[in-house]
Amino acid sequence: MLPLRRNIAEMAGYVPGFQPADAERWIKLNTNENPYPPSPRVVEAIRNELGADGARLRQYPDAGSRAARAAAARLYGYDADWLILANGSDELLNNLIRAFAGEGDEVAYIHPSYSYYGTLIAIQGARPRTFGLTAQFKLADFPARYDGKLFFLTSPHAPLGFAFSLAEIEDLAQRCSGMLVVDEAYADFAADSAVTLVRRYPNLVVTRTFSKSYALAGMRLGLAVAHPEVVAALDKIRDHYHLDRLALVAAEAALEDQGYLRQRLAQVCATRERFSVRLRAAGYPVIASQANFVFVSAPDGNGQRLYQQLYDARILVRYFSDALLCHGVRISIGTDAEMDALLQVLGA
Amino acid sequence: MLPLRRNIAEMAGYVPGFQPADAERWIKLNTNENPYPPSPRVVEAIRNELGADGARLRQYPDAGSRAARAAAARLYGYDADWLILANGSDELLNNLIRAFAGEGDEVAYIHPSYSYYGTLIAIQGARPRTFGLTAQFKLADFPARYDGKLFFLTSPHAPLGFAFSLAEIEDLAQRCSGMLVVDEAYADFAADSAVTLVRRYPNLVVTRTFSKSYALAGMRLGLAVAHPEVVAALDKIRDHYHLDRLALVAAEAALEDQGYLRQRLAQVCATRERFSVRLRAAGYPVIASQANFVFVSAPDGNGQRLYQQLYDARILVRYFSDALLCHGVRISIGTDAEMDALLQVLGA
Repeated sequence: MLPLRRNIAEMAGYVPGFQPADAERWIKLNTNENPYPPSPRVVEAIRNELGADGARLRQYPDAGSRAARAAAARLYGYDADWLILANGSDELLNNLIRAFAGEGDEVAYIHPSYSYYGTLIAIQGARPRTFGLTAQFKLADFPARYDGKLFFLTSPHAPLGFAFSLAEIEDLAQRCSGMLVVDEAYADFAADSAVTLVRRYPNLVVTRTFSKSYALAGMRLGLAVAHPEVVAALDKIRDHYHLDRLALVAAEAALEDQGYLRQRLAQVCATRERFSVRLRAAGYPVIASQANFVFVSAPDGNGQRLYQQLYDARILVRYFSDALLCHGVRISIGTDAEMDALLQVLGA
Repeated sequence: MLPLRRNIAEMAGYVPGFQPADAERWIKLNTNENPYPPSPRVVEAIRNELGADGARLRQYPDAGSRAARAAAARLYGYDADWLILANGSDELLNNLIRAFAGEGDEVAYIHPSYSYYGTLIAIQGARPRTFGLTAQFKLADFPARYDGKLFFLTSPHAPLGFAFSLAEIEDLAQRCSGMLVVDEAYADFAADSAVTLVRRYPNLVVTRTFSKSYALAGMRLGLAVAHPEVVAALDKIRDHYHLDRLALVAAEAALEDQGYLRQRLAQVCATRERFSVRLRAAGYPVIASQANFVFVSAPDGNGQRLYQQLYDARILVRYFSDALLCHGVRISIGTDAEMDALLQVLGA
């Protein structure tokens, strides 16, 4: 018997969205990837860093991610010590738990939302607590004073797509004695962002990912905005060389090409609105989305059948067996042509 | 006051080796980087994955690292479920602690060796214990039965460069009731490796890095060989998408180009032997090394002065202020020309 910690031995691993081996034969709308390539400046930056013979790869990267942090700081209007880069925003969620919650400490999140919070809490041996949603997408039964070590608020919400208002987020920051982490993986597609609130609330952390809006899921990049004391703690916990040289130059170039980002965001959001209108017209209830996906109810309430119907037409979407989500499916926003193909399958 | 865990608030962060901003003006022998570029196949694999427009980067990488694991499995003669890839071997050290040691549990390592073990133990809130070395580079006072959760054995040892014998490692695996982790960051430069012992000892884990021998410090790649039960636990703990697409193809290509590796290893080892002989001839005691560095004593016992002498000649080596190490410096093996320049400064 190996002396594994009990929480590790007993937990199930997280299962990410299905990635088909023959991806080119599918319309793949199941993991909220961007249908467009990343900025050409990202590709150029990687090519430059690689050089003719890759000689720079023999040397360690900058442990401080200074160039990418500076680019993020300029973008968000904070000093660089309010910013931290990461190997995907998942690394930040993980290290936030490690910074603030010991074994047995309470960490909360919304159910349903990103189920990986639960996995990370189990790895730490912390104690999970979940809060539900009302039919109007408000937090249910959240106490006037919440004393858990962290509360993860996914906004825009995944997989439902609505966003909490900044007023709601400010109210939560005031009610939490621990940290409020606003997971803004999808915020570039939304009207608002809590980044501007961070200065006012030392217990507020906003996390972002490059996977969706910057079309860099394959490069594993994320960032957080938080008070310097929080950033300093995360800097102590992270692997000192957590980001490789190519990821670092990719992050910097992506952040600096906001023109390209805005153009792609406009395309995705236009497709999302057009798609939502047409689905609703065909009798499919669609939650108004501020993300690069929509949550669509099956007219007969059977999400699995809807998933299967699309699967049979070689269109991959995401079905969740959870009782609160099994009435529909989550559909990533692809190109107009991809969404049209999907609408055609549904006779819409 | 932010509710930081006490162990995080009180700990100091790890400080990696100094990386000068104007690296091209230095002979940089302080972080054990490889003086030669990585395999041309690595560069080609990255370029292919990047493609003309980086379109593949918009999609998530393979969460299972299957191609790279298969390449490692072929190389080491194990089935793929005995292998795990990682974001540098540091990620493996971190996750091994998380898998086996909870708060307050004992984790041991050799002092002096890689000081990052101590940082990782502090992050977890585990309890560190260190074992010393005898003058003959044997473990001092290691008990007949050791019940700590993990013991990290650095072999070849850093920063001294000697290696423990396989007989010593087997003996330790039998004496440990917890896990014995042999950190083989430098083993490609050594005569032996404990990889072949893993099959016999379920509590034995061998970690490797691509940073030194494969000249990929900039890509953050490592791997471990362990029993499938250990690999399964590490797979649960790691971020599911911990390795980006470019790192994954780099790892696979590097592992598959053993011809290039062998050629570069032969060069570095030949330089190491030639350098060691000449230093000794000039009166500098040099520990026989099985790594890509040597530990050199200053003839007057003042390592800091030796460091400064080389620094003044724009040659960077590593000085450790620790009482057990301050009599000398660690010098990475560069090209013959770089080592000759260093010898000239020392009048050797």
